[in-house]
Amino acid sequence: MNIYDVAELAGVSIATVSRVLNDSPSVAEKTKQRVRQVMEEHSYVPSGFSRGLGMNAMKTIGLICPDAADDYMAKAVACLEHSLRDYGYDCILCCSGYAYEDCQIAVSALLRRRVDALVLIGSVYAADDPDSERVNYIRDAAKQTPVFLINGYVRGDGVYCAVCDDYGASYSATRELLASGRRKILFLTDVNTVSTNLKRKGCEDALAEAGLTLQGDLNVGLSNQINQTRDYLLRLQGLDVDGIFAANDALAVGALKYAKRRGLAVPEDLCIIGYNNSELSVCCDPELSTIDGRESRLCQIAIDSIKLCLCGRPAGGKVSAKGCLVRRGTTDF
Amino acid sequence: MNIYDVAELAGVSIATVSRVLNDSPSVAEKTKQRVRQVMEEHSYVPSGFSRGLGMNAMKTIGLICPDAADDYMAKAVACLEHSLRDYGYDCILCCSGYAYEDCQIAVSALLRRRVDALVLIGSVYAADDPDSERVNYIRDAAKQTPVFLINGYVRGDGVYCAVCDDYGASYSATRELLASGRRKILFLTDVNTVSTNLKRKGCEDALAEAGLTLQGDLNVGLSNQINQTRDYLLRLQGLDVDGIFAANDALAVGALKYAKRRGLAVPEDLCIIGYNNSELSVCCDPELSTIDGRESRLCQIAIDSIKLCLCGRPAGGKVSAKGCLVRRGTTDF
Repeated sequence: MNIYDVAELAGVSIATVSRVLNDSPSVAEKTKQRVRQVMEEHSYVPSGFSRGLGMNAMKTIGLICPDAADDYMAKAVACLEHSLRDYGYDCILCCSGYAYEDCQIAVSALLRRRVDALVLIGSVYAADDPDSERVNYIRDAAKQTPVFLINGYVRGDGVYCAVCDDYGASYSATRELLASGRRKILFLTDVNTVSTNLKRKGCEDALAEAGLTLQGDLNVGLSNQINQTRDYLLRLQGLDVDGIFAANDALAVGALKYAKRRGLAVPEDLCIIGYNNSELSVCCDPELSTIDGRESRLCQIAIDSIKLCLCGRPAGGKVSAKGCLVRRGTTDF
Repeated sequence: MNIYDVAELAGVSIATVSRVLNDSPSVAEKTKQRVRQVMEEHSYVPSGFSRGLGMNAMKTIGLICPDAADDYMAKAVACLEHSLRDYGYDCILCCSGYAYEDCQIAVSALLRRRVDALVLIGSVYAADDPDSERVNYIRDAAKQTPVFLINGYVRGDGVYCAVCDDYGASYSATRELLASGRRKILFLTDVNTVSTNLKRKGCEDALAEAGLTLQGDLNVGLSNQINQTRDYLLRLQGLDVDGIFAANDALAVGALKYAKRRGLAVPEDLCIIGYNNSELSVCCDPELSTIDGRESRLCQIAIDSIKLCLCGRPAGGKVSAKGCLVRRGTTDF
């Protein structure tokens, strides 16, 4: 017994059967009764697939992130999947990588699946300017299905954004670094995204107010892990800094390992600040001071926003959460 | 122009249109030509959804793991999704949690989506005995769609398993611990899975050969993180061990932090061995000796096996990879 048999026996189309399964108001009550009677008489068990047949889509949400193995993104994926499944939606996951073209391909691949919503995790999907033409592919996608960004801001109809104030958090942390007497600050990153740019700008603006500039701005590259970051820094000739601001915790731990090799006391000789407040930050010794990017808050904002949107009450364009410094052993303020 | 219009204009069912889109051999060449002509004349662009309409399923693989935020599982999810997408399949992700009933619910939820294959990541989906009735739900699932297990073994038709020899790896590592003179070994875990049981058994059997038993067998619970593990150990009265074998790296880092608080020299007073060779193992100081569970190898075995299966040449029931100890600073052998 499949949906085709039900349709034939009830004398309706399979799309109508599907609409009955979804209790769509567009089907007459009498027709619904007839179809349901056929189902009952033949003990028909509908598949998720048959539920979706007559609708625009099965209940499915597309989750896109650059790399689901990344600690930050893995947490967001797990949190979103859990809440959305509770809400009755399956999640199709797509790891796009960081390249602009691959991000576009990922979005169109999931649009072809007629997902009920798209969630993009990470600022790589945004542009420095929320009105930039570079993110027209996001605005175009939002014409077909609502789009939710986690830590990225794109202005457009049907685009909903939950962002951490990376600029403000970095600005404040750098002000504290300066107040503690540090002057020679290195900025360390592994990928250039909108979020990285905001962190760097927060740092630079705080320094500029004190008449200073960054002592260095290094990108160690995505393929470099903790010990590669340490070695990268060790290879630099004449690196002389008293503060390192790292765009994520793995980089910061690499910086800490560099300091140990160089015989620098942390935090006395060198303060180190990471970003994301990940599990890594409590593995090292001393534990890492790191900015909490409020990831779980951003996910919650997105989930609330998705639920409102899917029941026809879209709300908000951009909602911000405030990042904050978690003080541990690699700073002394 | 949608699939219904194409069907009407070509005088066929939508299922036939879908079969033409998939170039199914069950449609006559003449019919195919007629349908394709209609599509061309009306510039019809098929959606992934319409491709799936007449088939058992769209090209979709279900990925199930207990927790996508867990480092081990996140890596497997990312690796599988990447390779399967390259191969033309979308992945629906489902995080089941660890409870037996929830694992069953996750499997049936994805079966309802008529996935082309199911991949279950983690030994929580297996049973200590591969013939156990407890895993009949896996065997039942395999009657509908092929099932691939990553680090779990269930015997059954259509069930394909890639496993790490957790027993052997733990046995060998414990033998080395004993050869280095350690006698009082603590086993530390946070969840009881088949894999945990194999690790414990490997440890116990090596000890038994030396006429010894475990000094302790502690489960700190899943909700406990690194510092909670440290505190858990600190609270124990009279804990006197010279070797800790931890079922994952986070637990091992917790043990290392316990040792530091207690003023124990690592590895001289206390050897610590973790499991998974995760990023955490190079964050701590000294770096963690840990067993590499050959996760990426297991994923590759599963991917190869899925590809063979999906093109009609299923191979293998169970394929094993050998785990190995990665020697770093928390051991001296």
